[in-house]
Amino acid sequence: MPARTLCFVLVDEGSSIISQENFLNQAYLGLVLSAMAAPSSLFSSSMHMEVLAPKLSKCPQGFLCCHSKISYMEPSYLSVKKVSKGEQMKKICQRNGIPCRAMEVEHGTSVSPGLKFQLDDVIEAQQFDRYTLNSIFQVARDMENIEKNSPGSQLLKGYLMATLFYEPSTRTRLSFESAMKRLGGEVLTTENAREFSSAAKGETLEDTIRTVEGYSDIIVMRHFESGAARRAAATAGIPVINAGDGPGQHPTQALLDVYTIEREIGKLDGIKVGLVGDLANGRTVRSLAYLLAKYKDVKIYFVAPQVVKMKDDIKQYLTSKGVKWEESSDLMEVALKCDVVYQTRIQKERFSERVDLYEEARGKYIVNQDVLKVMQSHAVVMHPLPRLDEITVGVDADPRAAYFRQAKNGLYIRMALLKLLLVGW
Amino acid sequence: MPARTLCFVLVDEGSSIISQENFLNQAYLGLVLSAMAAPSSLFSSSMHMEVLAPKLSKCPQGFLCCHSKISYMEPSYLSVKKVSKGEQMKKICQRNGIPCRAMEVEHGTSVSPGLKFQLDDVIEAQQFDRYTLNSIFQVARDMENIEKNSPGSQLLKGYLMATLFYEPSTRTRLSFESAMKRLGGEVLTTENAREFSSAAKGETLEDTIRTVEGYSDIIVMRHFESGAARRAAATAGIPVINAGDGPGQHPTQALLDVYTIEREIGKLDGIKVGLVGDLANGRTVRSLAYLLAKYKDVKIYFVAPQVVKMKDDIKQYLTSKGVKWEESSDLMEVALKCDVVYQTRIQKERFSERVDLYEEARGKYIVNQDVLKVMQSHAVVMHPLPRLDEITVGVDADPRAAYFRQAKNGLYIRMALLKLLLVGW
Amino acid sequence: MPARTLCFVLVDEGSSIISQENFLNQAYLGLVLSAMAAPSSLFSSSMHMEVLAPKLSKCPQGFLCCHSKISYMEPSYLSVKKVSKGEQMKKICQRNGIPCRAMEVEHGTSVSPGLKFQLDDVIEAQQFDRYTLNSIFQVARDMENIEKNSPGSQLLKGYLMATLFYEPSTRTRLSFESAMKRLGGEVLTTENAREFSSAAKGETLEDTIRTVEGYSDIIVMRHFESGAARRAAATAGIPVINAGDGPGQHPTQALLDVYTIEREIGKLDGIKVGLVGDLANGRTVRSLAYLLAKYKDVKIYFVAPQVVKMKDDIKQYLTSKGVKWEESSDLMEVALKCDVVYQTRIQKERFSERVDLYEEARGKYIVNQDVLKVMQSHAVVMHPLPRLDEITVGVDADPRAAYFRQAKNGLYIRMALLKLLLVGW
Repeated sequence: MPARTLCFVLVDEGSSIISQENFLNQAYLGLVLSAMAAPSSLFSSSMHMEVLAPKLSKCPQGFLCCHSKISYMEPSYLSVKKVSKGEQMKKICQRNGIPCRAMEVEHGTSVSPGLKFQLDDVIEAQQFDRYTLNSIFQVARDMENIEKNSPGSQLLKGYLMATLFYEPSTRTRLSFESAMKRLGGEVLTTENAREFSSAAKGETLEDTIRTVEGYSDIIVMRHFESGAARRAAATAGIPVINAGDGPGQHPTQALLDVYTIEREIGKLDGIKVGLVGDLANGRTVRSLAYLLAKYKDVKIYFVAPQVVKMKDDIKQYLTSKGVKWEESSDLMEVALKCDVVYQTRIQKERFSERVDLYEEARGKYIVNQDVLKVMQSHAVVMHPLPRLDEITVGVDADPRAAYFRQAKNGLYIRMALLKLLLVGW
Repeated sequence: MPARTLCFVLVDEGSSIISQENFLNQAYLGLVLSAMAAPSSLFSSSMHMEVLAPKLSKCPQGFLCCHSKISYMEPSYLSVKKVSKGEQMKKICQRNGIPCRAMEVEHGTSVSPGLKFQLDDVIEAQQFDRYTLNSIFQVARDMENIEKNSPGSQLLKGYLMATLFYEPSTRTRLSFESAMKRLGGEVLTTENAREFSSAAKGETLEDTIRTVEGYSDIIVMRHFESGAARRAAATAGIPVINAGDGPGQHPTQALLDVYTIEREIGKLDGIKVGLVGDLANGRTVRSLAYLLAKYKDVKIYFVAPQVVKMKDDIKQYLTSKGVKWEESSDLMEVALKCDVVYQTRIQKERFSERVDLYEEARGKYIVNQDVLKVMQSHAVVMHPLPRLDEITVGVDADPRAAYFRQAKNGLYIRMALLKLLLVGW
Repeated sequence: MPARTLCFVLVDEGSSIISQENFLNQAYLGLVLSAMAAPSSLFSSSMHMEVLAPKLSKCPQGFLCCHSKISYMEPSYLSVKKVSKGEQMKKICQRNGIPCRAMEVEHGTSVSPGLKFQLDDVIEAQQFDRYTLNSIFQVARDMENIEKNSPGSQLLKGYLMATLFYEPSTRTRLSFESAMKRLGGEVLTTENAREFSSAAKGETLEDTIRTVEGYSDIIVMRHFESGAARRAAATAGIPVINAGDGPGQHPTQALLDVYTIEREIGKLDGIKVGLVGDLANGRTVRSLAYLLAKYKDVKIYFVAPQVVKMKDDIKQYLTSKGVKWEESSDLMEVALKCDVVYQTRIQKERFSERVDLYEEARGKYIVNQDVLKVMQSHAVVMHPLPRLDEITVGVDADPRAAYFRQAKNGLYIRMALLKLLLVGW
């Protein structure tokens, strides 16, 4: 389905139309910006990044258009979000007495790798189509190169990322902060963001976001409530990345999982993936299933203890997308067939007082040397980490143990997203 | 009243007098510094910044003088502070066998914008006269420009700020850290500074400061005890900024409030300000009243529920400074007349168990669409944030809702203060 | 005893031998590195730093050798550690289809100052011989120079340090982070590292390290368990610095103590040191005793309340190394003779409910003006901080009060270690 592009129509301070040529000229742009009393950081960040150039011809005649951030999201999502940003932009212009119109135009084609584009927000795994995924993965590979060979990269120099964590997640936070710093960017850290909106003080998430967006260029948010990331993105004039919102989404984990499969196996179409362990509670495997459905001829095997079986919504979704899946209770048989054995931790915290059920589930499917023996030589074992003993330590030494490389890929994916959100392709 | 200037008289390692010309020569200065076994960072930071040049002729003949940090504080404040720093400097020189004399000389005029000067510490709102305030605001406007147009500013490159927070205040901390990083500086963060001086270990604030000043170039401190910032500044050989000390002061909030009024209304003399809400417990409105008293023909309206009325000390202070004020119970009438409606949150935590009183106070004066309707078109609504429902969300979209711009101004004021404290005008 | 050097034998992607000349060529090195699908950061960090050059001739003929990180540790320590790294390296190469052999060769001489070398990990004070100590101190002096005269040093630009603190220690953490930032490096901070390996989730320290090493170039770890640093170093492919592991070691404190003695007194051979206070529980004085035993003609006096006397293991160790020591209950007499009076805090937390014993011990030996009076003019008072009243505040003004200079030396020592671990001599 065609994505849509937001056009911002700007007229300069003297009310004459800014010509396209002048608009592209950075010096002139600076003038326009400084003529506005209090332009939001959204505005300046989206403009000074040169994202605006390639699609100018698509705008209505007689006006100069700024193709802010081009989005490739599902339309329902886009419409909520974009209108809100368009209105924000209008308000800013009106407040400053700058004639302005914001409108949306259909954007005929999806992103093609190599063409200039910029991501807007990263809220949920489903927002990406396979072409956008492919583009992100291409950038991630560039990032690998940068991390290894350009230790002093200045790609994001001058950019400031705020990690707004309403609950601690050291692993995820460090990964994002490393990504930002590896590209020369800077970080504002908060791990006690709850203090912002404490019950005692009662500030809304929206107010907090409006404050924090004044201090930074991008917000990485972890929240305990499902949907919080979407609310933040609807408010913020700067990009928002969802680093996990309660039982909801954790899209960067899903992206790094798919990226790892592609890096390790060399393809995504036609792969066979065994999802093992806690399939009921793990948002990781659920998001992964959603993303795999975007590829062709994928086969998924569910291998889970009875109490934590994959839920019906995902099975129905896969079926509706034509993805073949089956349930199995034989890990060895699945391991023999699969390209990827994706093991997960049984989440004890979900069993509350039924320790007996937990212990039973926990011991049921262990990836050990015996599993390795039946796996194909090109296949890999993955795990979102942390692991307990569902993969034995003895497996670590095998080249097919991909989980630490997978964790490292999280760095590259996050570097890629930061680049795409802040400076575009 | 004339401020005073500290002169440090230095003689070089061979005990011969350093001539003025040589002293101004950076290379030679380096020599002198490296001849000292352990010069404090105060010393080197105040010297290598070239703050010393413009007033040299005022020093006693036959000696070379270093006009360390020129202060424009009220004399009572200055004398305590400066003597302590002079003695520190003497100790350092003596310890290193360098002949040295420190003395204070009267400095005839207040700071004039454009003249070289450097702030020393920021401890309380009252320390600034209107000329210094004006200078700070001029720099803040430059900072706005830098933040918008020079994302990779290196103005404070090589400087390290320590945020020493004895109680968490994420909003304030992020604002300071963003300010530092927007100027290319670096940050050491601590939000659990209490651990430094825990009851168990019992270290004094002074000892902590002596340690932290060895690791950084400037200290931003939040403390739970009134007067803690002043004690820290008296100890530290590097600048200290008070980011709130208990029921005491929060001077950067007061500065950003006044700056916002000037930015939004265009003037400070002759303005009419309505202070609304919790006037008894809010240190923000108290500090703001102090600062507004420095301007001419200001009129202040107090609009507060009976239980949280403005206290007599402020009223008496305003009267003594010739500032007109009156109390009103009619928010609409005040809103009609004022340039600024400064709303504040009723601080529930001060009501302990009298929830009934809190609820009564809380609902009494709400800024909503009705209030907007009577306000003049150039007037603005301000709020120190966080807000609950004392300003309805519907107000946000009005161009006169200035509170998020006010929060953003906190960034510019803090950038300006960091610049003025570290490298001077 | 001769240290050993690890040789990594590399063959390029086409399986032809890389010649020595080409290998030293950075551009070519980049090619080799990028030919590896997923080289660990150990590999690239040890290679691109040019540590490899000087000892190439010692490697077996016909191969190109990379003298990764040359170690000067005691052999027992080296063997455990190095084999583990060698095997890691082999795995990486094999996984990527690059022919590789790792071997250890004897390295005839200890490090000589001026010769190229690079530290591997900093785990315990005893790992350093006096030549290595001397080299570290030389670098620390360079660091003093950099801190004072080169505020924008870029020596460690592009390097990322992770402070992995399983228990808070703000003082130590700030010192390390300041050191890194003073040299232009960047920092990832975590003070709640326990969350990584919480009982609920149960991740091993080894797994955590494998994740964190993917995000950073060096790990500074504080842990509550003795031996944790050594386990981390055995796992990590990047350098690890022990910033305190429970009742175990705190080697950087020991190094800064010895460095301070040398800076203040001008020598280490032949010095007389009085260790005062809590000698039973203070790991500082224990580590210091170990390090002093590496110097000639050292005399140590123990001055401790009966309940916290120095334990026998240290006394026996000193005797075995030929270090003279005696116990005394007369602080004045000891102060008269010593070059260094090293005072320590009585650790209340070790007395549990015996407050009476604590109070008795605490008041017994106080360094005050009377002690200063008998001390020689060149002698100094040291203290690891924080202090309570075991040194009176009146002592601070005396030039012989070295404890705040000592704290500052911690910065220089940590800068030196970071430099030696990341880029080598």
